[in-house]
Amino acid sequence: MNTPMTRRMFLVGSAALALPMMAAGQRSPDSAGPADPELIGNLVVAYRILAQQGVLDGFGHISARHNRSAGRFLMSRSLAPELVTAGDILEFDLDGNAVNANGRTPYSERFIHAEIYRARSDVASVVHAHAPSLIPFGITGVPLRPVYHMASFIGTGVPVFDIRKQFGMTDMLVSDAAKGRALAQTLGDKTCVLMRGHGIAVVGATIPIAVGRSIYVDMNARIQTQAMSMSRNVTYLDPQEAQKVMEAGENRAYERAWELWKSNAMGK
Amino acid sequence: MNTPMTRRMFLVGSAALALPMMAAGQRSPDSAGPADPELIGNLVVAYRILAQQGVLDGFGHISARHNRSAGRFLMSRSLAPELVTAGDILEFDLDGNAVNANGRTPYSERFIHAEIYRARSDVASVVHAHAPSLIPFGITGVPLRPVYHMASFIGTGVPVFDIRKQFGMTDMLVSDAAKGRALAQTLGDKTCVLMRGHGIAVVGATIPIAVGRSIYVDMNARIQTQAMSMSRNVTYLDPQEAQKVMEAGENRAYERAWELWKSNAMGK
Amino acid sequence: MNTPMTRRMFLVGSAALALPMMAAGQRSPDSAGPADPELIGNLVVAYRILAQQGVLDGFGHISARHNRSAGRFLMSRSLAPELVTAGDILEFDLDGNAVNANGRTPYSERFIHAEIYRARSDVASVVHAHAPSLIPFGITGVPLRPVYHMASFIGTGVPVFDIRKQFGMTDMLVSDAAKGRALAQTLGDKTCVLMRGHGIAVVGATIPIAVGRSIYVDMNARIQTQAMSMSRNVTYLDPQEAQKVMEAGENRAYERAWELWKSNAMGK
Amino acid sequence: MNTPMTRRMFLVGSAALALPMMAAGQRSPDSAGPADPELIGNLVVAYRILAQQGVLDGFGHISARHNRSAGRFLMSRSLAPELVTAGDILEFDLDGNAVNANGRTPYSERFIHAEIYRARSDVASVVHAHAPSLIPFGITGVPLRPVYHMASFIGTGVPVFDIRKQFGMTDMLVSDAAKGRALAQTLGDKTCVLMRGHGIAVVGATIPIAVGRSIYVDMNARIQTQAMSMSRNVTYLDPQEAQKVMEAGENRAYERAWELWKSNAMGK
Repeated sequence: MNTPMTRRMFLVGSAALALPMMAAGQRSPDSAGPADPELIGNLVVAYRILAQQGVLDGFGHISARHNRSAGRFLMSRSLAPELVTAGDILEFDLDGNAVNANGRTPYSERFIHAEIYRARSDVASVVHAHAPSLIPFGITGVPLRPVYHMASFIGTGVPVFDIRKQFGMTDMLVSDAAKGRALAQTLGDKTCVLMRGHGIAVVGATIPIAVGRSIYVDMNARIQTQAMSMSRNVTYLDPQEAQKVMEAGENRAYERAWELWKSNAMGK
Repeated sequence: MNTPMTRRMFLVGSAALALPMMAAGQRSPDSAGPADPELIGNLVVAYRILAQQGVLDGFGHISARHNRSAGRFLMSRSLAPELVTAGDILEFDLDGNAVNANGRTPYSERFIHAEIYRARSDVASVVHAHAPSLIPFGITGVPLRPVYHMASFIGTGVPVFDIRKQFGMTDMLVSDAAKGRALAQTLGDKTCVLMRGHGIAVVGATIPIAVGRSIYVDMNARIQTQAMSMSRNVTYLDPQEAQKVMEAGENRAYERAWELWKSNAMGK
Repeated sequence: MNTPMTRRMFLVGSAALALPMMAAGQRSPDSAGPADPELIGNLVVAYRILAQQGVLDGFGHISARHNRSAGRFLMSRSLAPELVTAGDILEFDLDGNAVNANGRTPYSERFIHAEIYRARSDVASVVHAHAPSLIPFGITGVPLRPVYHMASFIGTGVPVFDIRKQFGMTDMLVSDAAKGRALAQTLGDKTCVLMRGHGIAVVGATIPIAVGRSIYVDMNARIQTQAMSMSRNVTYLDPQEAQKVMEAGENRAYERAWELWKSNAMGK
Repeated sequence: MNTPMTRRMFLVGSAALALPMMAAGQRSPDSAGPADPELIGNLVVAYRILAQQGVLDGFGHISARHNRSAGRFLMSRSLAPELVTAGDILEFDLDGNAVNANGRTPYSERFIHAEIYRARSDVASVVHAHAPSLIPFGITGVPLRPVYHMASFIGTGVPVFDIRKQFGMTDMLVSDAAKGRALAQTLGDKTCVLMRGHGIAVVGATIPIAVGRSIYVDMNARIQTQAMSMSRNVTYLDPQEAQKVMEAGENRAYERAWELWKSNAMGK
């Protein structure tokens, strides 16, 4: 009864499967060399954690910069996060070309990652998510602000990227380098950028930091929504308080929580 | 201790079990022939997914048009979605008559499905659900609108069917052909129709599309409710943006997510 | 490490364990005879279902009238619902005296059940719960009303019992016959009665009906709260519509859902 | 693939791992002697329960006063609550010095516990949590008040500690004795103290009472938020009613629920 799905199930309009692939004759870029197996292992764990914590569902992704080259990053082939294994991790250059696709389909929004790595040398991991709690902050004009110390990383503000401003009417996806650059510009030097009618991108200097920020920016959004339903006079963290939390190590780089998240995500 | 329930447990009023059955002497319609086992398998998976994702509980159902005849569709006997297996799938004609009931009770609201298949040749799968997030949109006059690209399929609007307008005081169920036709007329060429004080019907060109739309219309309702609690100035997806998402393949026909949903629904 | 708790852990104030026990010398009432094992089995299933569905947590209870005597009912000894087994079911008379306690502690609020059975010959099962969704309706003056057909059983209204009106300042518990009688009077001929600052009591002609109503009155409360946050103009089910749903068999006496709930509650 | 994390993963800024350790040459305090194994066992169970019930996530902690000395308390080394075992429990004096750390890192906020034990001889267990439901009550000025009998322990009010008043701009953590003392002073003779932009501290005369209060203050916050969204005229428990519940044994010292919580928390 548990028969495998055939592609026929999904062949509705011709557009549905017109995946953005490398043009015929175009050569794959050279690899930066094999990535650290531990890095790949932790990237896989991160996919599972973000699914298990409800930040990602069947869509969204996380990447990590390659340990051998600042010009390469690692990300799964197009796959639901909870199903990602080490064998699904591909290497990309900063133009979004896969080194080793071998016919595997990349995520169409890999340009979010590529252009952020290009613009931000301090970033070594990027998350893109559609977490429900965050969508309202991209479409209401209500600024996302830190309700508690766990979200101090948004103490300097969360900008909102509206793809319509520069690109007019689109399918909302950041599916080429120009859109990725515009998103990276809106992100600036911040930790998170909301995407109007779409989701969020979150960055970090390590995988656990990008994961931890994704989990707590989601939690902060839930709490802020509740607080705003109770009162219009909400006292947010003072920017100086947020800065002091960051200087003190930002929730200890999420080390304590990562151990738990990993245990829960991989144990099931 | 885990004794089976007897019907005595449920025999309260005589009306309770007056199920709408075929009148004595009426002949079952002929079968269109055996359905594709993969189609039946995927329909069973769809029942489990919709239960596992919280779109359906002990009530509600999904159907698929028969692969051999546009005038036949497949749906479970009256059973809680999470318990459906291949052996429970019945074949119906568009008058809601079962080909092969063999004493098994059909869902009383099969006319929702029958009349939508009759009116919409582009539809090959129909879901009927009571998802809690959606009920408020049927009883408040607040239009359900897309908060993000994942719900672009409601970019042309979601009509509300009020059974009272044409049928006066009823038991709220779409339990005959006339009520099914009225619902299908309100649906028109849209993807979803809310039912006042009852639930929703969602359609698609494939099972995964009907399932994916059911999951994301539910998610959209949750997000929209939160957004509206924060601000009265919500920026919804522009109709042109929604159209472009649809033209680009509507979330890739939910292929990536289906693989995950199926894995989670069947693995447990 | 998983050492058993000793009573010392809980011995804080002397009042904590001053359980209401039968006075010395008082005789236990005679039994009405052994209850139907299937009835006991279903009562145990009902405890588990209500816990698994989140209607009960560590507190609250369900009872069933004895199949041999209208003057007896069955209920667990004082125990968290999820832990109840057939061996924990005690028989009580309508004064709340246990037939067969053998030193086992009864729930202090058994008088809710006793006095409803005394007042309502049509009732064969009673639930008492503190479900969070329902508490606001007992303390805001906002009437609980049916948002959809699944909650038609509250179409005639849900009265609110305020223990303070008749009994002044209390510990809020319905822990004697007088308080139970007052609650039963407020319930009147309805299906549910809210208890201000405390919870709800729900009745039914069978165990599955009392369970089904408990689950859907909780769901209705959640939906109504959401609907009210979106609009002050909510269209509730018309009383005539609710009545027609009831006449048509009230969600088929929850037979379809019971099978699922039981499977989920007992399978884990 | 499930490779262990190395510390390199978390080494971002030098501040991140500048854990507050005992100064070189400083001697550990003497032990009060081995703690009752049952007490340690129950403390471990409490960590698991609070994680399983969603009061704690990867952060937060619970402690218990040592059974041999009012000047000592027991608490896990710095570890996510769900992962705590008996071997992780350390003994501390009321200055927050570990008796038996052996290189293990203590929680930086152990001073919350130490100073409450110093100030409150009636307290034998302390919880510190960041439960999302509670954060809004620390930042909106809306008082947390009992919506039902289960939360009678807040009938005398819940004060809010604002670290900024006495300490100006900080990293929000109660990471030294002076801050712990200020928090204990704000707590006064109450059962709970909210911490602005941070969380809550909850105390009890036993572990189950501290755990039960933590669970129900969280639940009360959720319910109160819902009630306030429905009406501005909420009837809270009368202080006299709350007092009578407390005098009657405060939910029977949570004995019935503890048995369930423990079963669920340790069974998985």
